[in-house]
Amino acid sequence: MKTDVQIAQEAQMLHIKEVAGKVGIDEKDLELYGNFKAKVSLDILKERADQANGKLILVTAINPTAAGEGKTTVNVGLSMGLNKIGKRTFTALREPSLGPCFGVKGGAAGGGYAQVVPMEDINLHFTGDIHAVTTANNLLAALIDNHLHQGNPLGIDPNRIAWRRVVDMNDRSLRNIVVGLGGKTNGVTREDGFDISVASEIMAILCLANSLDDLKERLSKMIIGYTYANQPVTAKDLDAVGAMALLLKDAIKPNLVQTLENTPAFIHGGPFANIAHGCNSVVATKTALKLADYVVTEAGFGADLGAEKFFDIKCRYANLDPSAVVIVATVKALKKHGGVGKNELSVENVKALEAGFENLQRHIENVKKFGVPCVVAINEFPTDTEAELNLLETKCAALGVPVVLTQVFAKGGEGAIKLAEKVVELAESGVANFKPLYALEMPIIEKIEIIAKEIYRADGVEFTPAVLKKIKKFEEDGLGELPICMAKTQYSFSDDQDLLGAPDGFKITINDIKVSAGAGFIIPMAGNIMRMPGLPKVPAANKIDILSDGEIIGLF
Amino acid sequence: MKTDVQIAQEAQMLHIKEVAGKVGIDEKDLELYGNFKAKVSLDILKERADQANGKLILVTAINPTAAGEGKTTVNVGLSMGLNKIGKRTFTALREPSLGPCFGVKGGAAGGGYAQVVPMEDINLHFTGDIHAVTTANNLLAALIDNHLHQGNPLGIDPNRIAWRRVVDMNDRSLRNIVVGLGGKTNGVTREDGFDISVASEIMAILCLANSLDDLKERLSKMIIGYTYANQPVTAKDLDAVGAMALLLKDAIKPNLVQTLENTPAFIHGGPFANIAHGCNSVVATKTALKLADYVVTEAGFGADLGAEKFFDIKCRYANLDPSAVVIVATVKALKKHGGVGKNELSVENVKALEAGFENLQRHIENVKKFGVPCVVAINEFPTDTEAELNLLETKCAALGVPVVLTQVFAKGGEGAIKLAEKVVELAESGVANFKPLYALEMPIIEKIEIIAKEIYRADGVEFTPAVLKKIKKFEEDGLGELPICMAKTQYSFSDDQDLLGAPDGFKITINDIKVSAGAGFIIPMAGNIMRMPGLPKVPAANKIDILSDGEIIGLF
Repeated sequence: MKTDVQIAQEAQMLHIKEVAGKVGIDEKDLELYGNFKAKVSLDILKERADQANGKLILVTAINPTAAGEGKTTVNVGLSMGLNKIGKRTFTALREPSLGPCFGVKGGAAGGGYAQVVPMEDINLHFTGDIHAVTTANNLLAALIDNHLHQGNPLGIDPNRIAWRRVVDMNDRSLRNIVVGLGGKTNGVTREDGFDISVASEIMAILCLANSLDDLKERLSKMIIGYTYANQPVTAKDLDAVGAMALLLKDAIKPNLVQTLENTPAFIHGGPFANIAHGCNSVVATKTALKLADYVVTEAGFGADLGAEKFFDIKCRYANLDPSAVVIVATVKALKKHGGVGKNELSVENVKALEAGFENLQRHIENVKKFGVPCVVAINEFPTDTEAELNLLETKCAALGVPVVLTQVFAKGGEGAIKLAEKVVELAESGVANFKPLYALEMPIIEKIEIIAKEIYRADGVEFTPAVLKKIKKFEEDGLGELPICMAKTQYSFSDDQDLLGAPDGFKITINDIKVSAGAGFIIPMAGNIMRMPGLPKVPAANKIDILSDGEIIGLF
Repeated sequence: MKTDVQIAQEAQMLHIKEVAGKVGIDEKDLELYGNFKAKVSLDILKERADQANGKLILVTAINPTAAGEGKTTVNVGLSMGLNKIGKRTFTALREPSLGPCFGVKGGAAGGGYAQVVPMEDINLHFTGDIHAVTTANNLLAALIDNHLHQGNPLGIDPNRIAWRRVVDMNDRSLRNIVVGLGGKTNGVTREDGFDISVASEIMAILCLANSLDDLKERLSKMIIGYTYANQPVTAKDLDAVGAMALLLKDAIKPNLVQTLENTPAFIHGGPFANIAHGCNSVVATKTALKLADYVVTEAGFGADLGAEKFFDIKCRYANLDPSAVVIVATVKALKKHGGVGKNELSVENVKALEAGFENLQRHIENVKKFGVPCVVAINEFPTDTEAELNLLETKCAALGVPVVLTQVFAKGGEGAIKLAEKVVELAESGVANFKPLYALEMPIIEKIEIIAKEIYRADGVEFTPAVLKKIKKFEEDGLGELPICMAKTQYSFSDDQDLLGAPDGFKITINDIKVSAGAGFIIPMAGNIMRMPGLPKVPAANKIDILSDGEIIGLF
């Protein structure tokens, strides 16, 4: 089979105006970036405020293995499959960060015959959104340090600055640094550090804002640190909001591209799925809902993190009403959850699969708690056997949940027609009755406990004394009614990444807690969460090249 | 009079396709960024290699005051004036950095009725070129630190790494930092620092490369530091070239915009004028020469730095053949050179003007040394008096140099018609016979001395022992035949910024020297050169905003 980049470069792309025209986007609402990318105006949302929405489908997954289970690929394939059966469909995905591109081989634009294109642009600078986030983030950082340098009238405690700088790069040497060295003219000396750009709170805000005004409102609430008198200091206090908003004026507009089968796709916003909510932008999703019968979107990591945050944070803030959920699983990953070692996953093992099915079963039960019906999509691998697939059929039938084999990597939309039919059946049955898991009015501790017990099935939650103190402070500062954005390993329901399957009898330990007051969530940290990846021994960058004739090699 | 931003927002812009069409750019060679910006393909240069070039006009200036003498404004105005008298003309300028925008009020897109538009885009992210340079620069930095972290097989001395990170921001706290803190998993601890992005050697390379292949060749030669065995380590040694080139694949293409009078303008590349050569890109200038009768371009700072580097570095590397030079001066600045204090510059003072004329006279003499004829353009201020202007007329006439009053700020192209006529007369006289000031084969010390004596009129050059040692090492490493890129204050011919007019009897002291082996020049440093500006007490960012209806305020 051809490589992803070969397939992508052979794509018969339509001019993006044509893609836009098919879903009724007026040319006045389109800002071209070359022939195959465009920014779409937020006016569409305003002008169609009273118009009915299409149906929203979430694609999520079991707890993944390191390779991932092909959630994006299924998302893209399903949207193409829905188009094939006559439903006007939009794909809505996150945009990839540059850092991982140059680290470990990989892109975030699907794979095989289920990709969004032009993938090389999407995986490089694209339309500059992440650069805009980086710049806005670092402008605020510069304003903070300049404030200290110019006499610190607000009385900001240099030891309690929470705002870190960002760079869209895997660069471990910047995790912990000291800035302001070199004497009086070179700033105030203090500890600092860089995160990768997509971990910036500004990226989360870009993805949750409903409009430019809402963006500014959220930016103004960001807490950058505390004064010597223990009062929170916000971006507004530093008069930084307007300049940041101006830097983000284009970044907030959804980016229109297409799938290999010319399905319209918004690729917009890419917040981390641990310290942020891991979903594409609200404005992209909402605009797509105005333009299509079906909108297929995904959320980062497995359903314990991704779907929960999608429901409790994104859907709640954006007033979204999802109609159905697709849970992606692979036979290989389920066998891993059933105890099979990495090197034996290609060998038939029905018994291990049965054991590993418990992971999938728990995600199915969890999704139902939000009142939304689900279907299981098995992302097919050549090594899957009939016996294994039959077992999954039987097990899902026993739970009353449909299961469909998809072949989107090899066949594109054709490989997702059955899945599309099942999704339409569920979505149009009208059984969906979405409700969040917890009420915002509950105390922070209670909200965390509900997620841990209902979704992770922990026996309880342990909070360190420092965390309890911070929670008290958040509630005193009026931040108690924000939703919860858990930061936890994606590999397990628990906070121990090696506890696979459907573990019981464990507790979750919250050893730090942060607030993103602008994005609008509290982030309990269950374990060490990486906010700045490193490069591997042989970085992908070493093999990447562009030849004289423009041919790109080594990128995927 | 209206503000710059008001004038810019009232501009009657043509669709950029139409601007391109007027100068014969085929639509296939155009990549749109919205309706008013486009990238232009490098294919034009290849396809028209055998075609004759238009005439190249350099706009330079006397030693400026802090406010600048309106060089960019005259450049834009002259190009519009040339169009008015029937010459198909292109403007070729540098693109502005974001940092200063948020620091001190200012843009770099001209002023009044002599601006390039859309100025708010040009002054913000524009087409992402600077972000691409930032990313390529920081990818290399990450690869260097990753190399150290992964065992350092090349034996790079962590104390001799010359490659710094960059950010497109005024951020003094990042000038001197320590990276790699926090133990073994977080990189190797060492001193480091950030420069502003436009000070990156990659920006200089982007502006000197003749093609994508030349770009890669230059990137590969960049020296990032030295081994324990004192051998230079290049970007090629780190296998970083292909990935950086890929990141720059669009940045290398010239950006097409227009003036307020719809004259085509390339705004492309913006290297520092002290530690780099301060000119827009070679590919933009050369492409414009294939498309127009006249190309008007500028070089950073006064003629002692800007014109000299334009001739000795840019014209030499790009085989350019300039036809005429415009030296911009203001009555105010000449009076300052004549000893008048800042607060008295608006008062008539013919005597001081006569004294200050010596500064202009020296620049006129210098330009002639390169074999190119010049005209003086007086950028008119309302406070200029008839007696003052008459004096300039008389003094220039005595030198056999034409002088023209221009009113481009207030009148646009109309205010530069006389200047345009004079430029055409000079350019078409055929008297230009460009030659560089020195031969590349000379020893480094001799080349520096020639510039100091011939251009600055210093009695001699003093080199610190450390500098002499470095020069010896550069020559041993085969870098002796590179041209010289002086880093010196722009305010004086000397290395003392307070020595105005036409000082004599001074020496230049070179207290550090660097090499940009990729860009291809040696950088003798005469004084402390700022590579990372800071923010002022009240940054412009504090007053910048974008309103709900999209109106931008406070940017200019």
